[in-house]
Amino acid sequence: MQNSKEYVAKNKERFLTEIIELLKMPSISADSAFSQDVINTAEMVGKALDEAGCDHVEICETDGYPIVYGEKIIDPNLPTVLVYGHYDVQPPDPVELWDSPPFEPVIKETEEHPEGAIFARGASDDKGQMYMHVKALEFMVKTNQLPCNVKFMIEGEEEVGSVNIATYVANNREKLKNDVILISDTGMISKEYPSITTGLRGLSYVEVEVTGPNRDLHSGLYGGAVANPINILTKMIASLHDEDNHITIPGFYDKVEELSSEERAEMAKAPFDINAYQKALDIESVYGEKGYTTNERNSIRPTLDVNGIWGGYTGEGAKTVIPSKAYAKISMRLVPHQEWEVITDLFVKHFTNIAPKGVKVKVTPHHGGQGYVTPIDTIAYKAAAKAYETTFGKTPIPQRSGGSIPIVSLFEKELGSKSILLGFGSDSDAIHSPNEHFGLWFYYKGIETIPYFFKYFTEMMA
Amino acid sequence: MQNSKEYVAKNKERFLTEIIELLKMPSISADSAFSQDVINTAEMVGKALDEAGCDHVEICETDGYPIVYGEKIIDPNLPTVLVYGHYDVQPPDPVELWDSPPFEPVIKETEEHPEGAIFARGASDDKGQMYMHVKALEFMVKTNQLPCNVKFMIEGEEEVGSVNIATYVANNREKLKNDVILISDTGMISKEYPSITTGLRGLSYVEVEVTGPNRDLHSGLYGGAVANPINILTKMIASLHDEDNHITIPGFYDKVEELSSEERAEMAKAPFDINAYQKALDIESVYGEKGYTTNERNSIRPTLDVNGIWGGYTGEGAKTVIPSKAYAKISMRLVPHQEWEVITDLFVKHFTNIAPKGVKVKVTPHHGGQGYVTPIDTIAYKAAAKAYETTFGKTPIPQRSGGSIPIVSLFEKELGSKSILLGFGSDSDAIHSPNEHFGLWFYYKGIETIPYFFKYFTEMMA
Repeated sequence: MQNSKEYVAKNKERFLTEIIELLKMPSISADSAFSQDVINTAEMVGKALDEAGCDHVEICETDGYPIVYGEKIIDPNLPTVLVYGHYDVQPPDPVELWDSPPFEPVIKETEEHPEGAIFARGASDDKGQMYMHVKALEFMVKTNQLPCNVKFMIEGEEEVGSVNIATYVANNREKLKNDVILISDTGMISKEYPSITTGLRGLSYVEVEVTGPNRDLHSGLYGGAVANPINILTKMIASLHDEDNHITIPGFYDKVEELSSEERAEMAKAPFDINAYQKALDIESVYGEKGYTTNERNSIRPTLDVNGIWGGYTGEGAKTVIPSKAYAKISMRLVPHQEWEVITDLFVKHFTNIAPKGVKVKVTPHHGGQGYVTPIDTIAYKAAAKAYETTFGKTPIPQRSGGSIPIVSLFEKELGSKSILLGFGSDSDAIHSPNEHFGLWFYYKGIETIPYFFKYFTEMMA
Repeated sequence: MQNSKEYVAKNKERFLTEIIELLKMPSISADSAFSQDVINTAEMVGKALDEAGCDHVEICETDGYPIVYGEKIIDPNLPTVLVYGHYDVQPPDPVELWDSPPFEPVIKETEEHPEGAIFARGASDDKGQMYMHVKALEFMVKTNQLPCNVKFMIEGEEEVGSVNIATYVANNREKLKNDVILISDTGMISKEYPSITTGLRGLSYVEVEVTGPNRDLHSGLYGGAVANPINILTKMIASLHDEDNHITIPGFYDKVEELSSEERAEMAKAPFDINAYQKALDIESVYGEKGYTTNERNSIRPTLDVNGIWGGYTGEGAKTVIPSKAYAKISMRLVPHQEWEVITDLFVKHFTNIAPKGVKVKVTPHHGGQGYVTPIDTIAYKAAAKAYETTFGKTPIPQRSGGSIPIVSLFEKELGSKSILLGFGSDSDAIHSPNEHFGLWFYYKGIETIPYFFKYFTEMMA
């Protein structure tokens, strides 16, 4: 019987050509200018699933972008794995910082990827990782080694908060019924230290608008006499952290679980080189909440970051204006037990309360999602660990990630099943940044590893 | 002998058509995309001066935009008035807030201007006011009533800090020799309360750049662990004012002159309706430095305003990014005795000092200028006051303005002469804002009044 390693070796070139075609599609869900491209990408994914051996592939309409569904049911009495991924991508801007156009994939070697990496928006998040599952299915079907049932649900709105998938899932509980959900939309520490993501942060994303005078004013005639919405906005945002970088929103930390010193000691075992970290980002020093390490700050602690700010004159040269309005996009990363709707309400109430007289404040919640923790004593986790041992020759390290996949907790609520986060990305993939890329070694390793998860999971469930 | 009132009445339509043609030119000195339009505007002004009766009109090259010069010397033994103005304008953005295109002038009636006002960028600042002098000259020449010598110096870089006129003035001291400088680039209280501007604020304009990580980062993976340049920029800007809205830059107030209670009582006599002021701006309350009135805050007190801020994702929807850089344009309005170069240095030093580890800060000074006070006991001021009495039937109120005309103190230094600020604009002209306009009544009244200044000034100098 042929193993996945050989199959991947035989089909390397084709697997590369196929993902490159998919990466050429500018499926930017946040920007309506690209809506047709997003829809076309859904069609492409449907075709790929069909060719890989899925039955009944459907492009399911939603109030937003379609969800691509496909399945291969070999025996109702066998376990069922539901694969989730997304075909939409983050906006590429600032485009001028890309070394090659974001939607014209190129292969380049890097220090971390001597075997080469694909540079393109979505290479790692999530087209490249999602497509590993399509090719793993192809292998299992073509070589008659699919050990259980499989379902695919690939959405097109993950980068804008998975706004419509909740309704879809709620309306299709029976159809989506499964024993475990498999997701590759995260990373691992390194080749040498394979890891499985066991925790995700939640998210609350809001947009704020501060309005001062009803029109732009001359800063000479009015400067100092009326509230300048930019000055006020900076004051209000600055006040959201205290001098120890704790967040000042009343009630924000109420549900935050403090890890035991044992748990923190366990986390601290993960290899981490602070100097290499600072060097890679060209920063003199890290910065964050007092009393926590860098790895704790970006995984087990909630945060508040301004993701965008704008107001007044931002063109060439100088304009002495007091603008009428100033804006910011603010996101909060949440930890398990923090309810994102509650945190959003707390933010809205607090931000409105701290507005001084002389300005009007509007807060618009964008989207959000719950944090999540995967137990490591489940069959699914054990099967995943064994799959990594088979292909990496090492036991994976369980690791909390700072990122968010809001959908995961929704799945548990609606479908009653746990998710396993088989991430093959690297921290250096620059997802959401210019020059996003995905190492070819990891792409092929993923396709090689996934079938073993299916094999061991089916065996352990028996 | 014909008086200016009759002449204006006879030529109303032509005076309007001419200024409309000038206002159609997008002479935006801050945006290099419009450089050819700025140059063409200089040509137009030269032609207008020539037709109004100037001799030796020249378009004088500089390292930036040209200075238009013209003169009419009737007798070297008579006094000489130098008229200064500018033909460049502020950028019109945000263009979407204009009710009519900024460079397609339209006449509309407003509550304050029942006789109609010209709506266009530059209508009041400064094309409209500058052109009053051209038409006043036309009247005096055509009716043989020019009582003294006159020189015109109209520049094209006032809105970007008059960067090249200093060299021009220094190299042309003899040519520009004069007994008084006449400038109409300010406003008056109202028809009922004509006023002459006797004080101007200085200016220091800088741009700041805060750099965190060397590339945009995913806010989930790095949020809370590295300095977010936007969060830091807001913290740094917020710290520039204390809770009483005093500016916190060390040494900033050292040279600020405290007015006596008598002087402040005198100022307080100027008619001012706080409710009308707040209603006009649609604000619930004014906002500013503790211990000073609104009219003091925007005239005799220095200020610090953010004129523009940008960084991160500012497009549609949501992007969970920690940007590499964040920027702001900041201007400080200064009062007499505050040296703008000194203040700029203090800002650069302070802003760099308060940057936390983990970010790099760059401060780029844009431009600046000195504040100015016109003594009211000079012949020039008395002549101006008498001119207003003649045409308004009222003695003008001396008034400090919050605006800046950096050039004025340069003139005094280089040419040894005082400037008289015969402003015919209104606070509601929306200069530097969308829907800038200039009341026709004031435009015509200016053309009518200026010749009387020439007359009385010459008589009083005799």
